[in-house]
Amino acid sequence: MVHVAILGFGTVGSGVAEVLATNGGLIDHRVDDLVRLKYILDVRDFPDSPYRDLFVKDFGAIENDHEVDIVVETIGGAGIALDFTTRALKAGKSVVTSNKELVATHGYELLQLARANGCSYLFEASVGGGIPILRPLTSCLAANELEQVSGILNGTTNYILTRMIRAGLTFDQALAEAQANGYAEKDPTADVDGHDACRKICILAALAFGRHVYPDQVPAQGIRGVTLEDVAYADSAGYKIKLLGRALRQPQGRVCAFVAPHLVPGANPLAGVEDVFNAIAVTGNAIGDVMFYGRGAGKLPTASAVVADVIDIAKDLKKDRHNGWEEGAPDLVVSADGIVSPWYIRAQMSAEQARRRCGDIQLLARGGAPAGEAAFLTAPMAEPEVRERLEGADVGSLYRVLA
Amino acid sequence: MVHVAILGFGTVGSGVAEVLATNGGLIDHRVDDLVRLKYILDVRDFPDSPYRDLFVKDFGAIENDHEVDIVVETIGGAGIALDFTTRALKAGKSVVTSNKELVATHGYELLQLARANGCSYLFEASVGGGIPILRPLTSCLAANELEQVSGILNGTTNYILTRMIRAGLTFDQALAEAQANGYAEKDPTADVDGHDACRKICILAALAFGRHVYPDQVPAQGIRGVTLEDVAYADSAGYKIKLLGRALRQPQGRVCAFVAPHLVPGANPLAGVEDVFNAIAVTGNAIGDVMFYGRGAGKLPTASAVVADVIDIAKDLKKDRHNGWEEGAPDLVVSADGIVSPWYIRAQMSAEQARRRCGDIQLLARGGAPAGEAAFLTAPMAEPEVRERLEGADVGSLYRVLA
Repeated sequence: MVHVAILGFGTVGSGVAEVLATNGGLIDHRVDDLVRLKYILDVRDFPDSPYRDLFVKDFGAIENDHEVDIVVETIGGAGIALDFTTRALKAGKSVVTSNKELVATHGYELLQLARANGCSYLFEASVGGGIPILRPLTSCLAANELEQVSGILNGTTNYILTRMIRAGLTFDQALAEAQANGYAEKDPTADVDGHDACRKICILAALAFGRHVYPDQVPAQGIRGVTLEDVAYADSAGYKIKLLGRALRQPQGRVCAFVAPHLVPGANPLAGVEDVFNAIAVTGNAIGDVMFYGRGAGKLPTASAVVADVIDIAKDLKKDRHNGWEEGAPDLVVSADGIVSPWYIRAQMSAEQARRRCGDIQLLARGGAPAGEAAFLTAPMAEPEVRERLEGADVGSLYRVLA
Repeated sequence: MVHVAILGFGTVGSGVAEVLATNGGLIDHRVDDLVRLKYILDVRDFPDSPYRDLFVKDFGAIENDHEVDIVVETIGGAGIALDFTTRALKAGKSVVTSNKELVATHGYELLQLARANGCSYLFEASVGGGIPILRPLTSCLAANELEQVSGILNGTTNYILTRMIRAGLTFDQALAEAQANGYAEKDPTADVDGHDACRKICILAALAFGRHVYPDQVPAQGIRGVTLEDVAYADSAGYKIKLLGRALRQPQGRVCAFVAPHLVPGANPLAGVEDVFNAIAVTGNAIGDVMFYGRGAGKLPTASAVVADVIDIAKDLKKDRHNGWEEGAPDLVVSADGIVSPWYIRAQMSAEQARRRCGDIQLLARGGAPAGEAAFLTAPMAEPEVRERLEGADVGSLYRVLA
C-alpha cells in the first residue's frame, strides 16, 4: 500500500483528493498497488468534509509517520511550503507539487535534496496545469537537442487578450470580466504583469537546457500596455497578440529567456489558442516543432497532473528519476538584445517618417485611425537597433513578431 | 555500454542512425551510459555509407549477439518484420518500432512476448510520427478515465484537404501535387482510403481503453468522396473538413472506433491543423481536453520518437514497463450507429424538402450553387436515423460534424 498526504486543502489540494477518490480503481490498477490518502494538512477546519477524519494541523504527524510515502504540496508560495517540502524530502518522502513559485526559486536545491534522500521531487502540474509538458520534454523529446520553448503559459492573460480580440473589450473591461468569472485574482499583478508566466518559463528553460534559470534573471513584460488599437492593427495583417514566455538556446551553453507580448502569425498554432487555454511549442533539432495544448489551470486539470506524478512515483518508490538540472549562474542567462525578429510598432508619425526611420516596413491599417498615427511591421532586427531607430519618436507600442 | 541494431535502412532507419550520431553526446548523457549502433540489417548494399562496416544481411548475426540490447525495427509491414521482432524478443532483446501495421495487428501477442522474456516492446513512433502521444497517454494522463481520442492521424490526407481548402484544388489535383512533393505514395490507397489512420486509431484505442482493437473491427472511410463543393459549404459556416480517427469509451467496457471525414468547427484546435501536420485530441474525466500537435511523419521527426524509446529502454534495460493491454474480442468494438452527432448533408433537394426530411436544419450557402442543390447541418442524431430520413434522396455527401 502507498500512502499519500496532501498539504493544503484549497482548489488544487481538494481536486487531488477528488481525483484519487473518483478514479481510485483505475489508479490502483495502474500502480498495481493500493494508493491511499492518509492525511490532509490544513490550518482550517472542514467538519463537513467526507475527509474530516484525515485532517491534521501539525506537519510533524506526517513527517514522522513512516507509512507516508508521497507528500502532495499544494500550499503555494515559497514560505511554509519550502519548509514542509524540505522536511518531507529529508524524511525520505517523495514530494509532488503544483507550486511553480517554489520550483522556480528553489528547484535546484530541492531536486538535490530529493536525490540525496533517495526520493523524488516532481512538479508536472507547475507548468501548463493539466497539460503534459515536463515529462514529454524530458523523456519523449530526449533524443533532441532542444532549440526553443515558447508558450502561452498564463490562462488569465490569454482570456483577457481573447476578450479584447473577440469582443472588443478594453484591457480594463476584460480584466474586470475575468475577475467576475473567477479567472483573475482581485490583485491580478502576478498574472497581468507576467510574473506567473516568468516562473513557468524558468522551469521549462531549466528542463530544456539543463541548468536552473531564476525568475530574477528573466525580464517579464505583461499585457497592461496592449490596446484595442494594437489588437485591430494586428488583426488587419492576420496576427493575434499573445503573451509568450520564451526560452532560446544560445551559444556556449547559455540561455535567453523572457516574457513579453508578441504578434503571432495566424498560421502558427499558438495563434488559435484562446480563452483560458495554454499551449507550449517546443522546437528540437530532430522533431522540428511540436505543440502541447490544454487547460492551463483549474481544479481537476491541475489535479490530473499532480496525480499522474503520484502514480509515477507510486509505481516505483525508490527509482532514481534523474529529473534534475544543474545549478544556474549569474552569467547563464543572456539578454534578449541579440534575438533578431521583426517588430510591430505603433507610433505618432507619418508613413514616410516610419519608412525613413525603419526602412523596409509593412504598413498596417485600421478603421478610425487618427491622422498622424502609423502602425507597421519591420524587417528582422535586434531590439537595440529598433530602439535606436525610434529614438525621440512618440511610440505607443513596440512588440516582437514571432517569426 | 548499450548496443543497438537497426533493421531496415530506409527513411526512418537511416534517420535513427543520423539522430544517434548527431545527438550522441546528449543521448549518452541522458542515458548515463554509452549507446552505440552495432548493426544495420538491410538486403541492399550501401558501400558509400559512413555506416558501411555495420551492415549485415543475416538477422542471425544480431539475434545471436548477446551484446545487442535493443533492436530498432523500421522494416514495416507484418511479414518479415513480425518474424524478426518475435525472434528478437525471444532472445531477450527489447524492440522499438515505428511499424503501425505490425503493432495494430500483432501488438497484443508481441507485448506478451516481451513481458515473458523480460524485455520491452515500444512503439511511440507508430502514431503521430514524432509527436509524443503514446507515453503521455499512458503516463501523464494516468490519473484520468479517458473518454475519447480523436485525431488527425494521416499527414497525406491532411495535406490534400488543406490544399483543397486553401488553394481550391480538386481531390485529384491535390493528390497529384502530394505525390509530386513526396507526401503521397504512387499507390495512395493506404492513406486516402483511411487504412493508415485506421491502424493508428486502433493503437490509440488499445492504449486508452486497455484492450486490443483490431483494424478489421474499425470501419474506415477515406477522403476520395470529399468535393470542393463540400469544402465551400463547410467554410461558409466556419467548418474545416478533416479526416479523423476516433475512439470513444462505451458502456460495459466496450469501445467505438471509426475513421471518417468530419466537419470540424473553426474554434476547435483540430481545425487549425494544416498541411502534413498531425494532432491528437484526448478527453479525460479530470483533465478535460488536451491536444498534441506536430509532424506526423518524416525522417527525423519519426526517428526522434524511435530514439526516445531507445533512450527510455537504455536507461533501465530490465524494467517492467507495464505498457501492454489485454487481448481484444469480437464483441469489444461496437458500431458507431449509437454515436449521436449533427450531420452535414449535400443533396439534390430543395430547402423545403430538406426541412421536411430532417427537421430543424441550418442551411448552408456557396457561390455558384446550382438550383436544386441543398447543403445543411442537422440537429444531433444517430446515423441510422439520418440515413432513414434521407432514404430515396439523391445524396452527394454525408459527413459527421464534430460536436
